[in-house]
Amino acid sequence: MAEESRAFVPGHVTGFFSVHRADDPARTGSRGAGVTLADGVTTTVAPADETSVTLNGDRTSVEAVERVLAHLDVTARVRCETPLPAGAGFGVSGAAALGTALAAADALALARTENDLVRVAHVAEVESGSGLGDVVAQARGGVPVRLDPGAPPHGRLDGLPAAGRVEYVSFGELSTASVIEGDVADLSAAGERALATLRDRPTTDHLVHLSRTFAREADLVADDVGAVLDEVPGAAMAMLGRTAFAFGTALSDAGYDATATAVHPGGAALRE
Amino acid sequence: MAEESRAFVPGHVTGFFSVHRADDPARTGSRGAGVTLADGVTTTVAPADETSVTLNGDRTSVEAVERVLAHLDVTARVRCETPLPAGAGFGVSGAAALGTALAAADALALARTENDLVRVAHVAEVESGSGLGDVVAQARGGVPVRLDPGAPPHGRLDGLPAAGRVEYVSFGELSTASVIEGDVADLSAAGERALATLRDRPTTDHLVHLSRTFAREADLVADDVGAVLDEVPGAAMAMLGRTAFAFGTALSDAGYDATATAVHPGGAALRE
Repeated sequence: MAEESRAFVPGHVTGFFSVHRADDPARTGSRGAGVTLADGVTTTVAPADETSVTLNGDRTSVEAVERVLAHLDVTARVRCETPLPAGAGFGVSGAAALGTALAAADALALARTENDLVRVAHVAEVESGSGLGDVVAQARGGVPVRLDPGAPPHGRLDGLPAAGRVEYVSFGELSTASVIEGDVADLSAAGERALATLRDRPTTDHLVHLSRTFAREADLVADDVGAVLDEVPGAAMAMLGRTAFAFGTALSDAGYDATATAVHPGGAALRE
Repeated sequence: MAEESRAFVPGHVTGFFSVHRADDPARTGSRGAGVTLADGVTTTVAPADETSVTLNGDRTSVEAVERVLAHLDVTARVRCETPLPAGAGFGVSGAAALGTALAAADALALARTENDLVRVAHVAEVESGSGLGDVVAQARGGVPVRLDPGAPPHGRLDGLPAAGRVEYVSFGELSTASVIEGDVADLSAAGERALATLRDRPTTDHLVHLSRTFAREADLVADDVGAVLDEVPGAAMAMLGRTAFAFGTALSDAGYDATATAVHPGGAALRE
């Protein structure tokens, strides 16, 4: 048994999505597309008699993380470090949940496969109401396209080949739960249209274009993000947060004080 | 259209496998388990009127690479760079085929998804007789477990969570085609037993143990590799090459002049 174990999980911004609910939380999820980011969450887990969670050094509570540990039937000290703002559409809770699952299984020698641990983290996210598709996208990396909702073995993913710089500007939080637990019929119809259209021409330019249309159709554009989208044709909104993102230098070229990161080439993984 | 595009694909050593043939090469493949390596193949593709392929600067011919370009209906200049020996069980041909698919699609703006390109590379490998499971494993990264044979959407994978050092010692080539195109009934039965047993206790230690047993049962152990396996309980044989590999420092601790690499945390991806 390791003293402690560490996992890195990329951030994830969703461009568009549809909501799919089932009785089984492992079959519940979203379809859609987004981008995983080299800016992510590093989670360190050490066995402990009582569970505690810190985020960038501050004691906190992340329901999805606590549910992961409960599903694994362990207690542990969990430390999450990230440059990403929480609640702003970067999948920080999903990353913390998946990182906890991977690192806890290693630290406590639980002998679980990656698909098992992705399922545990996805179920914990769904039960917490904090996300529907981040965990499976973060497990895959790159520019994930969620073809079918849910965790392994139910969900099915593809990806758009892409590398290089991604920029983002964030204005703060938007409640994921208030959107995905409300009436999502129109939103889901718009997300399904976007996915079908993306599959006809699977490129990152098209992903951005369809994400912009989706944000308007689903009526989710906050004022501050809307101003960015109006000014920068290559920018889209991160679902769900008051965040705009773009490939390349589109945001900094337009004069925004954007944070630069990159498409993360791989998915979630243990780190030495 | 880019001037040229580049992709990195990790190396892959298989520990055990079974052979599954179907009329459709996309459904043909192997089940089994192995390790992807941070030592891999970087492939650069530039549009050209006539196809040419170099490996570490030397003009060569790689049937799987040429088949990938033919399937994509393009011609290109393909440059592969790798520290890995060819023909020694590291999946160099699969990596070159998959890297060519990813980089050619980008350089020539073909608008294909990753699953599509993995399928093209897998089919090219199967048709060339140079591999059955490397491409899908290399697309995934980590420590891939091939649960069902074939390319997306047919194949199905899982993985063992792992990170850190991997060592290898290689004594040279073993013909993949001569093994996988011969009588594989006993080999496949041994591979199926190993996979079922691994799923009961999915750890890297167990993977090494089962791989050692498989190599003996399938009667594939070359003399020079056999001497290493006898001396180093933590070493297994790379299928198919005269190569021994081990997690951690097992080979160097035993005095072998082993090459050090690491578990590759992600799968194949475009690089800037």
